[in-house]
Amino acid sequence: MTETAFSPTERSTIHRLPSRGSYNRKEVYDILDQGILAHVGFTTARGPVVIPMGYARRGDTILLHGSAKSRLLNELTKGTDVCITLTLLDGLVLARSTFHHSMNYRSVVVFGHSSVIEDPREKNAALEHLVEHLVPGRGAEARGASEAELAATLVVEVPIAEASAKVRTGPPVDETKDLEIDIWAGVLPLRFETGEPIPDEHTPKDKPVPSYVRDYPQGRA
Amino acid sequence: MTETAFSPTERSTIHRLPSRGSYNRKEVYDILDQGILAHVGFTTARGPVVIPMGYARRGDTILLHGSAKSRLLNELTKGTDVCITLTLLDGLVLARSTFHHSMNYRSVVVFGHSSVIEDPREKNAALEHLVEHLVPGRGAEARGASEAELAATLVVEVPIAEASAKVRTGPPVDETKDLEIDIWAGVLPLRFETGEPIPDEHTPKDKPVPSYVRDYPQGRA
Repeated sequence: MTETAFSPTERSTIHRLPSRGSYNRKEVYDILDQGILAHVGFTTARGPVVIPMGYARRGDTILLHGSAKSRLLNELTKGTDVCITLTLLDGLVLARSTFHHSMNYRSVVVFGHSSVIEDPREKNAALEHLVEHLVPGRGAEARGASEAELAATLVVEVPIAEASAKVRTGPPVDETKDLEIDIWAGVLPLRFETGEPIPDEHTPKDKPVPSYVRDYPQGRA
Repeated sequence: MTETAFSPTERSTIHRLPSRGSYNRKEVYDILDQGILAHVGFTTARGPVVIPMGYARRGDTILLHGSAKSRLLNELTKGTDVCITLTLLDGLVLARSTFHHSMNYRSVVVFGHSSVIEDPREKNAALEHLVEHLVPGRGAEARGASEAELAATLVVEVPIAEASAKVRTGPPVDETKDLEIDIWAGVLPLRFETGEPIPDEHTPKDKPVPSYVRDYPQGRA
């Protein structure tokens, strides 16, 4: 992290409601580091495609991975322009007019050019980083990837060339003339929450649930 | 809905783990009807862009809306190829090997060509449909859009030309040789849950929270 802010380019400049936008690197990274699943868009010969993918930020780079058999992921290994968008939905904003209804959210849009990580050692390090991002603590316990498994996995990195964050928080913003309407207005908060962990049939019934599962942070995704 | 299944084209054919894929129209629509926020991808002169948007399905069409000042939404009004992806994340799948870690999810990918709805009456009907999808019951209570508000809103429709669903459920699938590893394995369920509704400062303290807010379904997003 050499700079504290991304320079807005024409593509990443936030035109709409710029008060909600930010190019602050720390804010962008804080949002990215909370997510689990991003939506990755790129252009194929047949048009635009958006696919959901587990990801992790490592320094100024986004790591993506998937099966070597994935046709779409193989498009990314060729090196292509990518847009990676993460959205954390925080609530529904219910105004007095339908027009002023909105959502509270934190989102990040990253632009970059993809490349494949081929060196097995670098690939393994990237996968370990991905596991640690998605389930911190799991990597120390689970069996690591074998040579064959590494070969069957594609790992793609996208250096963050441009990025911006957009955040909406707080109550609805109504027209003054609407304030007298007799209607409940406010925010319905939404949050990803974990349920009761479900052990598989091969896990002994008395095996304690690991703390990194039991205490998995609420609100990620 | 004239057909019960989408015909897979080269673009929408699910190559990877086809057992998880479906072109069944009912399954695709059931997933779409649960979501709140989709990720919309299209190609601009400067490359691919993915933006989060509230949406609603109406028949065999996806409705999108936003501010008439939105530079990106204006690209969609010109008529362009769009990919709309919705992902409902259901859990983290913790296997005994890092390689077999996965996520449980339901996702839909829709391909289509966008066009703008300009007729004010059609536009109003589309917005009412959007509000009803996002917060069922709200439209009957909130003030509808004025002429000026309609003019300030862009509504885009994308007829669903191709679509597919992909679903993963259930426990991890481990290598037989890994079953003896002494580690907890299973699923950590994740779900969007609503919090306590927060009335804004103009709502009388004794105003009851409407039932459509209080009983908003868990698990949407």
